[in-house]
Amino acid sequence: MNIQPKRSSLIPETVTTGPLTGSRKVYYTPPSHPDIQVPFREIDITDPNEEKLRVYDASGPYTETDIGVDLSKGLKKIRKPWLERRGFSAYAGRTVKDEDNGGVTEDKLVPACPANTQPLSGEAAKYVTQYEFARAGLITEEMIYVAHRENLGRERMLGCALEKIADGESFGADIPAFVTPEFVRDEIARGRAIIPANINHQELEPMIIGRNFLVKVNSNIGNSAVTSSVAEEVEKMVWSIRWGADTVMDLSTGRNIHNIRDWIIRNSPVPIGTVPIYQALEKVGGDPLKLDWEVFKDTLIEQAEQGVDYFTIHAGVRLKYVPLTAKRVTGIVSRGGSIMARWCLAGHRESFLYERFDEICDIMRKYDVSFSLGDGLRPGSIADANDAAQFGELETLGELTKVAWEKGCQVMIEGPGHVPMHKIKVNMEKQLKECHETPFYTLGPLTTDIAPGYDHITSGIGAAMIGWFGTAMLCYVTPKEHLGLPDRDDVKTGVITYRIAAHAADLAKGHPAAQLRDDAMSRARFSFRWEDQFNIGLDPDTARAYHDETLPKDAHKVAHFCSMCGPKFCSMKITQDLRVEAAAMLENEKAVLEGMAEKSREFLDQGGQLYVKQ
Amino acid sequence: MNIQPKRSSLIPETVTTGPLTGSRKVYYTPPSHPDIQVPFREIDITDPNEEKLRVYDASGPYTETDIGVDLSKGLKKIRKPWLERRGFSAYAGRTVKDEDNGGVTEDKLVPACPANTQPLSGEAAKYVTQYEFARAGLITEEMIYVAHRENLGRERMLGCALEKIADGESFGADIPAFVTPEFVRDEIARGRAIIPANINHQELEPMIIGRNFLVKVNSNIGNSAVTSSVAEEVEKMVWSIRWGADTVMDLSTGRNIHNIRDWIIRNSPVPIGTVPIYQALEKVGGDPLKLDWEVFKDTLIEQAEQGVDYFTIHAGVRLKYVPLTAKRVTGIVSRGGSIMARWCLAGHRESFLYERFDEICDIMRKYDVSFSLGDGLRPGSIADANDAAQFGELETLGELTKVAWEKGCQVMIEGPGHVPMHKIKVNMEKQLKECHETPFYTLGPLTTDIAPGYDHITSGIGAAMIGWFGTAMLCYVTPKEHLGLPDRDDVKTGVITYRIAAHAADLAKGHPAAQLRDDAMSRARFSFRWEDQFNIGLDPDTARAYHDETLPKDAHKVAHFCSMCGPKFCSMKITQDLRVEAAAMLENEKAVLEGMAEKSREFLDQGGQLYVKQ
Repeated sequence: MNIQPKRSSLIPETVTTGPLTGSRKVYYTPPSHPDIQVPFREIDITDPNEEKLRVYDASGPYTETDIGVDLSKGLKKIRKPWLERRGFSAYAGRTVKDEDNGGVTEDKLVPACPANTQPLSGEAAKYVTQYEFARAGLITEEMIYVAHRENLGRERMLGCALEKIADGESFGADIPAFVTPEFVRDEIARGRAIIPANINHQELEPMIIGRNFLVKVNSNIGNSAVTSSVAEEVEKMVWSIRWGADTVMDLSTGRNIHNIRDWIIRNSPVPIGTVPIYQALEKVGGDPLKLDWEVFKDTLIEQAEQGVDYFTIHAGVRLKYVPLTAKRVTGIVSRGGSIMARWCLAGHRESFLYERFDEICDIMRKYDVSFSLGDGLRPGSIADANDAAQFGELETLGELTKVAWEKGCQVMIEGPGHVPMHKIKVNMEKQLKECHETPFYTLGPLTTDIAPGYDHITSGIGAAMIGWFGTAMLCYVTPKEHLGLPDRDDVKTGVITYRIAAHAADLAKGHPAAQLRDDAMSRARFSFRWEDQFNIGLDPDTARAYHDETLPKDAHKVAHFCSMCGPKFCSMKITQDLRVEAAAMLENEKAVLEGMAEKSREFLDQGGQLYVKQ
Repeated sequence: MNIQPKRSSLIPETVTTGPLTGSRKVYYTPPSHPDIQVPFREIDITDPNEEKLRVYDASGPYTETDIGVDLSKGLKKIRKPWLERRGFSAYAGRTVKDEDNGGVTEDKLVPACPANTQPLSGEAAKYVTQYEFARAGLITEEMIYVAHRENLGRERMLGCALEKIADGESFGADIPAFVTPEFVRDEIARGRAIIPANINHQELEPMIIGRNFLVKVNSNIGNSAVTSSVAEEVEKMVWSIRWGADTVMDLSTGRNIHNIRDWIIRNSPVPIGTVPIYQALEKVGGDPLKLDWEVFKDTLIEQAEQGVDYFTIHAGVRLKYVPLTAKRVTGIVSRGGSIMARWCLAGHRESFLYERFDEICDIMRKYDVSFSLGDGLRPGSIADANDAAQFGELETLGELTKVAWEKGCQVMIEGPGHVPMHKIKVNMEKQLKECHETPFYTLGPLTTDIAPGYDHITSGIGAAMIGWFGTAMLCYVTPKEHLGLPDRDDVKTGVITYRIAAHAADLAKGHPAAQLRDDAMSRARFSFRWEDQFNIGLDPDTARAYHDETLPKDAHKVAHFCSMCGPKFCSMKITQDLRVEAAAMLENEKAVLEGMAEKSREFLDQGGQLYVKQ
């Protein structure tokens, strides 16, 4: 292929690049697999006695130092050698139609991304999906890759029993002390985890979603009929992953929908998810009643060939559940759910997504597109949480999970939504039971409806809790939820809020190495290493800027006090002085620091005079 | 008294006033008590079929329409007639000393607030504290006042059993369907709730803190040695309560500390809390080793006469616990705790706060200053959560609670801090057990340490959870925590985040009327009443501004779509269409809406053809 990029303002020229402050990208190559390079971010620590801190890094090559980005070329196809070894065949693929881009006029048409190549497709007789390989007992490169990613910081755990190395309450999850490729394979084979990885998304850096792995975060991007452009959308993807999104859903509903998706996928190192019914609806002029299997099927193939890694399919919105929503305060709030409900009710007919589910599976298996079985009947308000419509649909999703597995597909399940705190846990328990432990992927949930403008927070609370209870991936909510389209700042705020929720969940579940970063931060705090505190945090720039607002001088970045208390009054300083003082009294500081806890026990036992002057 | 205000730039000229957008202040006067006016905020609803929405309102007279504020006169002393009936005697009071204001030079001295009057004090032979009245079976005006405040929206509950009117999980709390003054009295008498109300804070609008009442929020203000002025501090108080703070702690450690506090209290409708050891330390030049009982006692009397409503007293930091902190990652992070630890260890002596606790009680009882027994050994990091030092101190606080009750004082207990999610619940359980159900008042807790700049969120997660489990008041954390002093925006963000946490907790506990506001919001959402959505929320201005960013036109405020999906694609619009369509089919919309759920059951039972064309 040798497509010349047609330069115009419609093409994204550049995106945000370069390392996060105080850190750099590093890659680890397992000696046995020279064509696997696992990315991490290494944060500088100013204390020479401490090691640099490695953290999980989903940001892709964009955070390399001095990276030259050419979006028209796309990212390097790191999966190419792996997929070549599996022997898929390339073919001409479906011809792009005008309707794929919403019938946009020539002057407003975003050109196709020149990095496009002919699509691959799997055959019936060969293993295609990660699920099929796993069931056959075969470990793929993707499985090895994610094992190394997940293992970060756990080297020290080798040979230890889990209960000795981490405390936590995992609610029955089977978190291992050390993640082996075989463990990854087994989890995928059991349907408890997925690696969303379309064989046409060769640029992908594989990641895993499952209850026994680190909790992941999804961010949503996408233009709408009201606003947005291709440049914005590609940058939103890059910006999302810079701050920690593990997957990105493209929820575009406007013009140029096909070609914008091209640019996003060719430049995305993370899995891209979509809701194909959105584009199908565009193709029929926005009228749900004009939807049919043919246009939907054509859209699935179109997007699968492009390399979309997971599809939200609202096949659980069955005719029988629709009347259950009539008395709800907020009815049906899922766009896909309401489209299908209208379709079903208008013709008194069963959903074609449900009736054609076998055929959908066959298409998705061919490219290893993972299912994200949509919760089209999720509650849209506290009042509607956990009702019969929601839980009825969940049962159907469990039934469909088994069908998809039978067909060789990977599956996760979408969940709510709006749920008060005391009703969150039963959502997780019911999902595990009804859907056979396949990964749960929830939107929040929002724990109250009274704070528009702050729904990243109302939902961050619910997200942290449901993540702790077992949800494998959290779909972010931005401050603009219910009000408008998120801009750059909103996307960042949403992603960081959800990284907090995911990490709080990892800590509470007892992931063996989760606390390493908290501990590094705490040591930096106690030693007044301000630069380290900024850099260890999720957002070094904001932390530094906040510190500068009160104490702007560089000297304050090494000061042994902060603006809250000022130089005379710092509790940590006093504690340090206290340690020194205690040490001086006993004429041996080291002995004090190491022996204090023990001596304290003696002291308590004897009710006595520990600190007698010598 | 006839003090002429000495006008200078040191005096606060004005503060933020006026109603929140779309609402106004209303007062309710119980027919039997004409000198009680209970404040609420009434939010406009544009749908003529809906009632205006009343919400709890701690913002004081500042949010009245066309209020004229003269800070030098202070607020109206609404408790004056109540207190006069109790027959307290006024006296000259302690003479203000130079050291009370940090020995500031004349040109920088903030003048005393002209609204000051002679202090009242209680006598040994008369009831002074709310606890004493409650134990004697007497209902005070303050108790009647808070009963009406707490009862908002519960009128419809009269005569209903709680389990019928609210679902929730209260973890053993005894939340009543309807709050009577007698219930309030009983809760105070049992030590399960407090009304912080110094008899010298007559401007106070009483509020109650207890597990069986709505969860409250505290905000912190206060200057430091590094920065801040009196004008800023008074405005921070007014600004905090505007957005929903129920109490305010003045944590000043800088100059003019006495006179700034004057201005704050004379103009505060909410309880003001302080940490007297901070000022005592200032008086001895900042050296903890120079502290003694005399300077501390003098400070207690000074602040009690001014009208401080609750004191944080770190009397649980006993000598024996100090060595338990030596191996911690972050040592002692409470300022009060570290001061006392140093004092204890340096002289190998028991804390004078512990040893003189009886005398502290006698002083605090005299003015009805409530105890907030400080957690000087709270953890400062995830690594240090729930350790022996923290829980040892908690046991001592339980012991001191009984002493304070014996002396007639009201008591609450401060709690952590930094705690991962799985270790939060045991904090609440242990506090209830060790401290005899006296109210818990926690700082967050932060559920991870890795997000400086976002600690309102890391802690908002923990605050919502511990509030649900039973914490009565949540001390806010702002985005500047660990980094710098909060400015106006940070204070607002902190307060609103904590209002979200408190409300999420109220919902989950099953407070009977808590969901009314969520439901009003949800109905506004489903009817596309955009103005109502903004105004019902915690922050109408931000919600409106966010909506304007994408759809600025006034017409869009009545549009039946939003920017997320655009006009063609709205799920709520589709649901509404769906309802109409279903109705048309059955030729009777009302029958459909009311009968749908039932018909759905029939449909499910019969596996049948519900929507057969007629």
